Amino acid sequence: MKIAILGTGSVGRTLAVRLAGLGHDVTIGTRDVEATLARTDAGGGGDAHFADWVAKNPAITLTGFADAAAGAELVVNATNGGASLDVLTEVGNRGLDGKIVLDLANPLDFSRGMPPTLFVKDTDSLGEQIQRAFPAARVVKSLNTLTAELMAHPGNLPEASTVFVSGNDIDAKHTVTALLTEFGHQDVIDLGDITTARGPEMLLPVWLRLWGALGTPVFNVKIVR
Amino acid sequence: MKIAILGTGSVGRTLAVRLAGLGHDVTIGTRDVEATLARTDAGGGGDAHFADWVAKNPAITLTGFADAAAGAELVVNATNGGASLDVLTEVGNRGLDGKIVLDLANPLDFSRGMPPTLFVKDTDSLGEQIQRAFPAARVVKSLNTLTAELMAHPGNLPEASTVFVSGNDIDAKHTVTALLTEFGHQDVIDLGDITTARGPEMLLPVWLRLWGALGTPVFNVKIVR
Repeated sequence: MKIAILGTGSVGRTLAVRLAGLGHDVTIGTRDVEATLARTDAGGGGDAHFADWVAKNPAITLTGFADAAAGAELVVNATNGGASLDVLTEVGNRGLDGKIVLDLANPLDFSRGMPPTLFVKDTDSLGEQIQRAFPAARVVKSLNTLTAELMAHPGNLPEASTVFVSGNDIDAKHTVTALLTEFGHQDVIDLGDITTARGPEMLLPVWLRLWGALGTPVFNVKIVR
Repeated sequence: MKIAILGTGSVGRTLAVRLAGLGHDVTIGTRDVEATLARTDAGGGGDAHFADWVAKNPAITLTGFADAAAGAELVVNATNGGASLDVLTEVGNRGLDGKIVLDLANPLDFSRGMPPTLFVKDTDSLGEQIQRAFPAARVVKSLNTLTAELMAHPGNLPEASTVFVSGNDIDAKHTVTALLTEFGHQDVIDLGDITTARGPEMLLPVWLRLWGALGTPVFNVKIVR
């Protein structure tokens, strides 16, 4: 599948490599290609040049947000939650109409210190904000409840765990679920329409505190039933 | 242990029977004993007289809120979240000072329809509100993330799952964790001080939607790591 990933942070890069490794045609979108190539925070240790990462991953094309989305069937929102609507607006309705938008972002608000709070919650969600802003896009919220490594490689945990999908378009949820299965996710629960994204987004406060209590972000919820 | 349970709903009754069965000295508190005895919603089918439930459980004393708490070492808040502060105020500071208050309640707001929203969240929690209102009580938030049956009988699920404790008093968390272990809980994660109650309380939105998606409240999260 032709997939555009918006966002060059660890989530975007991890999913780009994983999807390319699975044989998908992956383009990664950024605001300013030259500025991104000059970055030096692309390594695990925080010191590798982004240009080196690009050179190591020749199958992945780096381009502007709108160009990345233009040719894609599925657009992954891997930007920070606070930037997501701006970035998607840069892509524009024409670039998103009819497309599946897999929204991984969390509405984290760092302005009150750590741990972050949520800038939208309970009676609305970031997933819904995106769906309302781009009504012809087929938004699916998923994977926002786990760290990048486990989004792409759930088999790194000692047993199968659970991920969720929320969205208004059944076919889009089926396509996303198939991708999740390719990653290795064995338990995907369809929570319902895009309003149900409020649930997984509001998991972040306990997720952040579990990170603190366990000393690692490498964990996930499993719904035992 | 001498335990008072505030609240005569299914959570209060289920825990009262379980704790009495484990050999604890259980008193169940209600606002108006005569009115509670006259109720007809105490059965699984919603039609049994509360007086019949009391007769079937002779080891459990039914009394007023304040009298129940007066002799107890541990007070369980099993009231509805919206009523919790009023009920605890009826017990009063004298009845709670120095005691462990195990807070099971969720701050559910049904005024906007179903599913309910939360009347406090993200920058505060019901657990914190209770701790602030009764500063000499030792509040521990726990068990609010699962249905009454599984609070008391976690072994009814096919595998071990996870519960959380949040609170400022380490000894109080140890006492609550020991009780949870008596119930059969095998994985209790200490999230930290009472501010961490925001996390488990904000699990309710996904819990409510999972109930809808799965068609049963008999499930729980397990933190796989």
